Amino acid sequence: MQNPAEERQGNRLEALIEALESGTAQQARKMLNALHPAEIAQLLESLPSAKRNIIWELVDPELDGDVLLHVNDEVRAGLIREMDPEELIAATEGMDVDDLADFLQDLPSTLIGEVLRSMDKQNRHRLESVMSYPEDTAGGLMNTDTITVRADVTLDVVLRYLRLRGDIPDLTDNLIVVNRNDRYLGVLRLRDLLTNDPNMSVAEALDRELDPVIADAPAAAVAKLFEDRDLISAPVVDEENRLLGRITIDDVVDVIRDEADHSFLSMAGLGEEEDMFAPVMLSSRRRAVWLGVNLLTAFLASWVIGLFQGTIQHIVALAVLMPIVASMGGISGTQTLTLVIRGLALGQVRGSNARALLWKEVAVAVLNGLLWAIVVGTVAIAWFHSYKIGLIMGVAMIINLFCAALVGVTIPLGLRWIGIDPALAGGVILTTFTDVIGFLAFLGLATVFLL
Amino acid sequence: MQNPAEERQGNRLEALIEALESGTAQQARKMLNALHPAEIAQLLESLPSAKRNIIWELVDPELDGDVLLHVNDEVRAGLIREMDPEELIAATEGMDVDDLADFLQDLPSTLIGEVLRSMDKQNRHRLESVMSYPEDTAGGLMNTDTITVRADVTLDVVLRYLRLRGDIPDLTDNLIVVNRNDRYLGVLRLRDLLTNDPNMSVAEALDRELDPVIADAPAAAVAKLFEDRDLISAPVVDEENRLLGRITIDDVVDVIRDEADHSFLSMAGLGEEEDMFAPVMLSSRRRAVWLGVNLLTAFLASWVIGLFQGTIQHIVALAVLMPIVASMGGISGTQTLTLVIRGLALGQVRGSNARALLWKEVAVAVLNGLLWAIVVGTVAIAWFHSYKIGLIMGVAMIINLFCAALVGVTIPLGLRWIGIDPALAGGVILTTFTDVIGFLAFLGLATVFLL
Repeated sequence: MQNPAEERQGNRLEALIEALESGTAQQARKMLNALHPAEIAQLLESLPSAKRNIIWELVDPELDGDVLLHVNDEVRAGLIREMDPEELIAATEGMDVDDLADFLQDLPSTLIGEVLRSMDKQNRHRLESVMSYPEDTAGGLMNTDTITVRADVTLDVVLRYLRLRGDIPDLTDNLIVVNRNDRYLGVLRLRDLLTNDPNMSVAEALDRELDPVIADAPAAAVAKLFEDRDLISAPVVDEENRLLGRITIDDVVDVIRDEADHSFLSMAGLGEEEDMFAPVMLSSRRRAVWLGVNLLTAFLASWVIGLFQGTIQHIVALAVLMPIVASMGGISGTQTLTLVIRGLALGQVRGSNARALLWKEVAVAVLNGLLWAIVVGTVAIAWFHSYKIGLIMGVAMIINLFCAALVGVTIPLGLRWIGIDPALAGGVILTTFTDVIGFLAFLGLATVFLL
Repeated sequence: MQNPAEERQGNRLEALIEALESGTAQQARKMLNALHPAEIAQLLESLPSAKRNIIWELVDPELDGDVLLHVNDEVRAGLIREMDPEELIAATEGMDVDDLADFLQDLPSTLIGEVLRSMDKQNRHRLESVMSYPEDTAGGLMNTDTITVRADVTLDVVLRYLRLRGDIPDLTDNLIVVNRNDRYLGVLRLRDLLTNDPNMSVAEALDRELDPVIADAPAAAVAKLFEDRDLISAPVVDEENRLLGRITIDDVVDVIRDEADHSFLSMAGLGEEEDMFAPVMLSSRRRAVWLGVNLLTAFLASWVIGLFQGTIQHIVALAVLMPIVASMGGISGTQTLTLVIRGLALGQVRGSNARALLWKEVAVAVLNGLLWAIVVGTVAIAWFHSYKIGLIMGVAMIINLFCAALVGVTIPLGLRWIGIDPALAGGVILTTFTDVIGFLAFLGLATVFLL
């Protein structure tokens, strides 16, 4: 099932690891440094920490900076610990301002001062501007490497200016047009620059349709804008429409990937910036929190069962069948919950359609409740030769699936409303409900009708 | 918790829906068609189907094509059913070849012929080339709107050619350089075109470093390449290095989003192209499959419990405590499973490090098993005044967490190896194991030592 590109890469990595283990460090170093920094980063992330440090030693110091930008936060912190201050300062050279702002936050504070002192005034000023915004806002994502032009010059002047400049930053698809007070007016696309008459003025070729991003807009909104409009870069302005910098698609892709990873991993109580090979003690402590929370909910369910010990003692079949009712509620509720969490993340679930969605989910749950109640009831009757147990089990299951749908829609909406991440807390709360309601309905009905 | 941009959009949508419901269709139409096609698409996806069809009627026919490209497959199929053949053919006009190839697959076959006949020969030929590759390969993602140049001309000739052409396709950051047999040689970046001396030849300004993508490379590998190298576009070639087209970052972003959605939704047995407001019967049928599969595993767990009915009858406390052992195994195993599934998706888990990961996960599980065994055992002793029950429960939990870690690592690797999506099947298989092992260990130990 591996695709050819992955396999190729996999083979290269295997060969590299083999070269390492057979002791030919010289060859390993050569193979390693022929990789793209992103590939080196991936290799480092996928190694246990002892091997990781050996490989890291072999990486060409010139690549250090790029590799550090590609690994996740936790792995990065580990690699930084292995580096001398001089190596670290060397690694920051040539970093884009947005990357540097991100990177500095992982450095020991003594080094931050040194890095700042090593920069010229203009760059330091730019860096401080980026660092004044939280990492997950447009301001934190922006870079300050904009090329600005004035509206009153001709395209020919712009063309000559670019040739004189001799360099255009990566991922530049447009030049930003500002007035003399640095207020944003619009963009001059490179394609318009290339296809129009050089005697045309920038004002005529200008695209005023591209709304700039306000610096404190959240990263998720920026990602949505880029996705919807197929942007490569977008200008960032402050509240007064003054140009601060620009955001490029590469950073937006990282936001999208991180967001997606976050939802997926949060459902299991894991974080997206964690090291897969974190020390066992550290991993254990992190996982312990999640297990502890879940244990509390499991004890709650047990306590509910405990209320019916007398009933179970009389009819031990109830103990055999009760997990089925709870489990089906959990599965059905998780489907609803997942749908709503994703709808919220994509902005597709809102106040106005939440009610319609609730009714739809409840209807689906009740229909499935009826279907599986018949199946489950029939099996229970055949197994324990008691049509009453089958009937009670069917009714309990319908009740549990009905409640699971209610809870599956309302919990994520409620969590989001009070500012808690639904992907992180939703599953725990949901299964608490479905366990408790499942056991309560089944054992409660049995106590009333069977004893 | 809603961010300003979402709120703004939310408000606009609310206002629009209000305008619709108060019957001022004229105003609603105006508001609707002022939205970006991507926003209209999002609005349509978030509406129940009756309202969706009303809104769809109001959308400006000129926007139909763009909107259809932005909605998910299932919603698109529903919208297409509401359209006349003429409307559909009109909607395909102006679509990029890659989008059209994707779109045609949703049309009734009678219409496909008509669309093909309405195209000129060159475009039809291009379309057939794209359609000959599966949707999830580089060939299926590519567009044929490349601008090619020869290596032996000067940059000035290229500049004049572009001005004569008068238009450059969206998301063009480079021109593709081919020889007279259409074999790929490299790319001429627009930035190099703009900054170098016009008398320089294309051959001198050419970037030969950008490896082209082979048309049958899987979409996931293409996405990884774009992410690692921060690409905006990449040329696509056949096995003989002949240029077929190019892939652009906007389509890659869609791949990344879909991949992430897929993992997240698969874990709950949902599909990423499904309509959130699919008809109740359709949703019920789909969900029923997932519930049915899970029911089988629940019955398996029940059957295990059934083996120990005698034991439970004697010591009813076992029925109260047994769900805790099973549940903790499920939670702990799901953490491992989630980590491995994501590692596989990102290419970070491979044969060479799977063993190291397995040992690490087992060590974490055993440490947590010990910790929570003490907690759970103590609670059980305090609750049921039997140190034996506490001890047995603790031991059962360590066993279950240990097995959960083993299964959590090996199941996704095994599933991937035999070609089954681990995100879809992994969870069901894992909880089957953790339920069965949890009940078996706890009730089995109790039968041996307590009776």
